[in-house]
Order: sequence, then C-alpha cells, then structure tokens
Amino acid sequence: MSQWFRDGKPATAVSIDDRAFHYGDGLFETVAVRGGEPRLWQYHMERMTLGCERLSLEMPAVDEVRDELQVALGQHSPRNGDCIAKIVLSGGPGQRGYGRPPGTVGALLIGLFDYKPVPRQAYVDGIDTVVCETPLATGSPTAGLKTLNRLEQVLGRSECLAADAFEGLMLDAGNRLICGTMSNVFIVSDNSVITPSLERCGVAGVMRRLLLKALVERGLAVKAADVPIDELWNSDEVFLTNSQFGALSVRRCGEREWPVGGVTRLSQGLLAENGVGECAL
Amino acid sequence: MSQWFRDGKPATAVSIDDRAFHYGDGLFETVAVRGGEPRLWQYHMERMTLGCERLSLEMPAVDEVRDELQVALGQHSPRNGDCIAKIVLSGGPGQRGYGRPPGTVGALLIGLFDYKPVPRQAYVDGIDTVVCETPLATGSPTAGLKTLNRLEQVLGRSECLAADAFEGLMLDAGNRLICGTMSNVFIVSDNSVITPSLERCGVAGVMRRLLLKALVERGLAVKAADVPIDELWNSDEVFLTNSQFGALSVRRCGEREWPVGGVTRLSQGLLAENGVGECAL
Repeated sequence: MSQWFRDGKPATAVSIDDRAFHYGDGLFETVAVRGGEPRLWQYHMERMTLGCERLSLEMPAVDEVRDELQVALGQHSPRNGDCIAKIVLSGGPGQRGYGRPPGTVGALLIGLFDYKPVPRQAYVDGIDTVVCETPLATGSPTAGLKTLNRLEQVLGRSECLAADAFEGLMLDAGNRLICGTMSNVFIVSDNSVITPSLERCGVAGVMRRLLLKALVERGLAVKAADVPIDELWNSDEVFLTNSQFGALSVRRCGEREWPVGGVTRLSQGLLAENGVGECAL
Repeated sequence: MSQWFRDGKPATAVSIDDRAFHYGDGLFETVAVRGGEPRLWQYHMERMTLGCERLSLEMPAVDEVRDELQVALGQHSPRNGDCIAKIVLSGGPGQRGYGRPPGTVGALLIGLFDYKPVPRQAYVDGIDTVVCETPLATGSPTAGLKTLNRLEQVLGRSECLAADAFEGLMLDAGNRLICGTMSNVFIVSDNSVITPSLERCGVAGVMRRLLLKALVERGLAVKAADVPIDELWNSDEVFLTNSQFGALSVRRCGEREWPVGGVTRLSQGLLAENGVGECAL
C-alpha cells in the first residue's frame, strides 16, 4: 500500500509538463521511517542539498521538508510507525526544451510505502547476487547523486529480478565494481576494507556514509578506491549497505561463494549501535 | 501553446507512480510535423522500436501511434499544419523499486507544440555555439537512444542558455566531441566528412541519419568516428543537424570562427531535396 502527498494533501497525479517526467530532471531520497522517525535524516537532506547545488535546483528549506513528511505520516499512520518515505524533488513544470530557466521552483512530493523487512535469516547467512551485464556509464556529471535519471538501475534491477537474485552488482564501462542496483558494496581484502569510489558514477548511499564513519572511528583502515572486478573475486568478504536494510553479507555472486566475514559482522554490530535496529543479531 | 493527448483525448496529468517520473524510464521522439505530415516518421519509429528492444519495453504498433498522432492533429489544428509533435512512451505505472516487471505496458502520450522556425539568416550565416562544461558519461547502456534520462542535456542546455548561444557542443568524459545538446555535429577536415561516433553516448538523430545517407549517395567520403576536441578546432567547417531545423552552419564556437563551408551548403541542399524545406536557400 502506498500513498503520495503534496503540500500536505493526498496526490495521485503530476502535471504532464513536469520536468521529472520528461527528462528525469530532479532528485529523490528513500528514507527509512522507523517508530515514526526518519532515520539518517540529516544525511538524506545533505545529499539532496548537494544534488540541488550540482543541478542548480532550488533546495526547499529542510525544516519544511520535515514538516511535510510529518503531516504525511500523520495522515498515513503506518503500523508501528514503520514505513519507507520516498521524497521526490522534481524540476517542476516546464516548456518543451532541455534548458531549465533560472529560478525554476521544483515540486516536492512525498510517498509513503509499506516497510517489508528483509527476513532475519538473510542477516545471518547473507544473500545471493549476480553481476549485471548493464554497465554504468563513467564520467557522469551526476556521479554520487540520487537523481531521477535511473535507467541504468532499472535495467540492472530487471536483470537481477530475472535471475531471482537479491541484488545485482554493477560494473562501470571500465569493468570496475561500483555498487549494487539499490545498494553500496564493501569488500575486505587482506584486512583492508574498501568501498568503490563513486567519483565517476554510482550513488553515494547514506548507510555507506554512516558505516564508513563508524568503521573509521572503530580504528579500521577503510578507503574508497577503484575496484577492478578481479579484486571482487579475490576478496575475503563482501557485503552491501542500503538505507532500509542496513548491512547484509554477500554469500554468493554467480559461482563465487564467500563465508560471512568478521568485518561484515562488525559492521552489522556498528550499525545496530548507531540506530539501525535491523542489524542487531 | 501546447496540448497533450492520451488515447485520443486531451491530457493534463500523468499518474504519480509513472516510471518516467521516478526513473526517466521511457523514450521519446520529437517529430517535425510540416503541412500536416510527420517528417521522417519511419526513422523516428525505427529509433523508438530499437529503444524499446534495448530497454525491454513493449513497442506499440506503429500504425496505432500514427493514428493517435492524426487524432491529436485533428483536434489541435496547427496553423498551416506545422507543429512539433513530442511522442513519449513511458514505462507506465509501477510500484516503488527499479525493477520493471516483464510485460509492463507503457503509456503513450502525444504533445503538440507550436513550431517556431529558426530565422532565415541563421541558415545563411550560421549560428554561435559554446563548448559545455557538463560532460557526457561514456559507456552508456543507452548510447544512441532518445531515452527520458536527459539530465546531461538539461545541464548542458542550461549552460548554453546562460551563455546566450544557439547551441552547446558536448564532449564526453574522454574529451571527445559527441553532439550538441539538441543536435548532432558534423565536421569537415581535408575534404573528409566526420560525425562523432555515438557508440558510447549521445543521441543518434534522425536528421543525422538522413544526411549521412544523402551524402554517401552523393559520393562523399563520410564516416562516424571518434573526434578528439582538437579535431574540432582544426576542422575546416562545422555544422549541426536536428529534426526541426535540418542543418545549420556553426560560425563560431567560443573564440574559434569558421566560414560557411561547401559541404555545409551541399548538406543543406541535399536535405532540402529530401523534404526538409527549411534548408532551401
């Protein structure tokens, strides 16, 4: 079940001349609402603010976005206060033509969706993945951002569904591991923790950011770097992060299998300590 | 003035769960309607069909698309039968999540916009351009297609408007000339005609296709190839193609100026012979 809101009222449609519809001109955030509170709210709003800067869109006042979310939650009343809030900032209505006039005011929409937790067993045993054939284009001017241009993820995710895998790992056009279709990736090699650089493509997830901070504070050597695909195959452990599920071990990618590793378990523990209750084992 | 149609009726909105709005999941064509007839209709429909194959979207029957366009034109009655028809095929409604279930039926929308011809003088003297700072990501799985993921063009076009230029030339992340924000590019060097390869990014325009065919049939050496930016600066002539305006000479890009060249004039003549009346001088 889902429900959309705009300006505090239920919404079912967007204007046919909305720039998000025509060009994917806009940004979004998928926020985990748990017990009525949006998790990692500051990180989500910081990423959206950065996105607005890079796209020259006007960022709404964060307090107002928070107020609108609260109004929506008040009307939707999710069970236990748990749901997924999708916050979309579109480029707003426009005429034909790619150019966005300066001062265009975007449209803010908030969608609330049922939260379906990942089964407990997946946190314990890990999940299965495949490598997607769809590449991520490299050198993107929107690398790291969560824009509404997501065709690569649509194609990758559709591959993943066809393969009946939990997640698809995506490589860039240079055969480097970048991320999952809806998650970020960490690998552990020789006790060093590496997450792919997102300078050229990919989305810089909020859970990735939280975990990087937590690992560094725990004293682990962590770096964001290029990860040629062979480094994935040669790694000792692999796990994924995502705003909704926290962290999950990758137990398989195609033919390659991994045991659940120590850094993965540590990461789940650190996230649990930092408010991501799903990761408490 | 513009008017949108769906299923033969005026439309003002799209469903808030449309996949085009959320992911830019879909395709479009911008068709020149002249004297009531859609120009290069077959090329447009072939590109959309190819796009559907690559995106695993179901392509509507071309005859039905043509019928819907005709119904729309009948209601809109553009002056002299001249207008711009934007045909959008969106991924249709969906739930949250990137994956598109197999068998998803897309939504076909037709927008009719006023046609404002490029001033006569521009065909004679050429137009001014700039090089956009926004790069095109390279190695895109949708290279060549006209998808609804157009943020790079939005950013490039906005730069171009800020610079008050007619068009912005876009380079890929490897500093190769690819295309304009809304046009394709041809350069002439040592009597050889080159248009950038669109294997890694860019949109393969219908006017580019028509002109390539016409030039080859006229016996000219023409090739699609990589064009490092220096080859632009060292070229003897440069011109642009686009479904609406046909072909226009580039007389300036930043500080570099070019005279209107012989191949440009020949190209305008060939297009005029092939039904692109705007190019008849």
